[in-house]
Amino acid sequence: MFVAVVGDGRCSADVAALAEAVGRELARRDAVLVCGGLGGVMEAACRGAKAAGGLTVGILPGTSRRDANPYVDVRVVTGMGEARNVLVVQSAQAVIAISGEYGTLSEIAHALKLGIPVVGLNTWELAKGGQERQAIVHAGTPQEAVEKALALAIP
Amino acid sequence: MFVAVVGDGRCSADVAALAEAVGRELARRDAVLVCGGLGGVMEAACRGAKAAGGLTVGILPGTSRRDANPYVDVRVVTGMGEARNVLVVQSAQAVIAISGEYGTLSEIAHALKLGIPVVGLNTWELAKGGQERQAIVHAGTPQEAVEKALALAIP
Amino acid sequence: MFVAVVGDGRCSADVAALAEAVGRELARRDAVLVCGGLGGVMEAACRGAKAAGGLTVGILPGTSRRDANPYVDVRVVTGMGEARNVLVVQSAQAVIAISGEYGTLSEIAHALKLGIPVVGLNTWELAKGGQERQAIVHAGTPQEAVEKALALAIP
Amino acid sequence: MFVAVVGDGRCSADVAALAEAVGRELARRDAVLVCGGLGGVMEAACRGAKAAGGLTVGILPGTSRRDANPYVDVRVVTGMGEARNVLVVQSAQAVIAISGEYGTLSEIAHALKLGIPVVGLNTWELAKGGQERQAIVHAGTPQEAVEKALALAIP
Repeated sequence: MFVAVVGDGRCSADVAALAEAVGRELARRDAVLVCGGLGGVMEAACRGAKAAGGLTVGILPGTSRRDANPYVDVRVVTGMGEARNVLVVQSAQAVIAISGEYGTLSEIAHALKLGIPVVGLNTWELAKGGQERQAIVHAGTPQEAVEKALALAIP
Repeated sequence: MFVAVVGDGRCSADVAALAEAVGRELARRDAVLVCGGLGGVMEAACRGAKAAGGLTVGILPGTSRRDANPYVDVRVVTGMGEARNVLVVQSAQAVIAISGEYGTLSEIAHALKLGIPVVGLNTWELAKGGQERQAIVHAGTPQEAVEKALALAIP
Repeated sequence: MFVAVVGDGRCSADVAALAEAVGRELARRDAVLVCGGLGGVMEAACRGAKAAGGLTVGILPGTSRRDANPYVDVRVVTGMGEARNVLVVQSAQAVIAISGEYGTLSEIAHALKLGIPVVGLNTWELAKGGQERQAIVHAGTPQEAVEKALALAIP
Repeated sequence: MFVAVVGDGRCSADVAALAEAVGRELARRDAVLVCGGLGGVMEAACRGAKAAGGLTVGILPGTSRRDANPYVDVRVVTGMGEARNVLVVQSAQAVIAISGEYGTLSEIAHALKLGIPVVGLNTWELAKGGQERQAIVHAGTPQEAVEKALALAIP
């Protein structure tokens, strides 16, 4: 099972703690962690996954494999900038979004467009024409986020 | 001046009328219309631009130039699927979002991430942590959307 | 008709003269020039096309529209680095390769893989297992290159 | 160490045997195998790597993870078509090209452009202006190919 964790490249200690717990829980349940390979939420999630013996994949926006955080096992070097966000979510069977800014919003949107379930921890809320769109599955804890992601994951 | 018009590949007659008016207004003001090259909002906007003698650019997701709507002058064939959304907004100096679904949301998000101003007509509303994010500039009419897009356009 | 001109971003005056003549001839025959948008062969070809009143499209590897040479009309900003080479050839109905280094070789290879005819002026020669592969159509002059490209162009 | 193996999606039994031996040898030396994830040379190389307990990465051109051959551990789903060839070589520290057609030639060219060493087994020969370009390092056997790739690999 491949699960993407998306979130900002810089984050508070609180958000990092959430991401690390998500990574750990994914590894405990034998899911491979896919992410953008950089710092912040990505690094914290990878650190958690490695602490629990998991496998991590970082799909990097730049042209150097050295851009990856130290907890990435498999580094995919795209040189595609923001367009690599599509690859992160498309390579996963479910997406967990943790807080995040506009890059994270683009990943949520691409996942929803592609029919890949998105579980959110403290992340974006969407509305159109004054009506909320409940497309992101809410989770209250890292454990709940992982549980829901694995339950909803596409084949 | 290059302005992207983003919106759904299928749309109602009302939304198409808005898109056509946006395209026409862009052409009148000598802006080049950039879009995803397909149907719906993209086709209506291109039709409007051509009716007013404008130039249209379609950045296509598929591998065939024949996928373009008949009002596209310059067809860029990417074969990149959804990842071409990044190219549409990155090739523009401002973005006008008209209604739209998740693909459009991804384009809004990429534009905001890249610092390209987004003007919205009946489109997504964003919030995080219960607080609205006023990142999309609201417009009430096609004319206002084009005016604001041209005023905010980056160099 | 859309024809790509591919070649190195830096070139000798002789090669630039060839590229300029190719661009001029394409414009005279109402073909739109597609290229990578940068200097060297790309700039010379665009200069030639503009001198003859043609339309030029530059598919840029970087993230800034300012990277384009001054003779590019339509700037497509990909931020994809080398992967944009595929888009240059895929957006054309025929390719003219002028001299060039490994980037040009990648464009020739992608075009041949995609079934897009390649006409060569002083460019790469291919062989496998000691046998030449005559996949690139040889041209002796810019006029001949344009003539052959237009004659072979796919629909 | 990450090494890409590139070659055709369909191949003869002889070429498959070479590819399988290359994959096996890479795994024995603890290198991760990166490839395009499909059949032919890619599948044979992955089969060899898995038989020797290695890790395999498949960077797929399509939009479905089910396109991967059964010996791919980490599936990266790009949806980018031919443009994914750039990602295959850019994600590796050295490239081994086995026979191959134009897609393989594009991978060789991208690698050389990016400064990534290419070792060839029965593959393309390059020339320009009547002069051979010795950019591809020749190998006579799978073992020699792996040895040379690991010796030349960039950091």
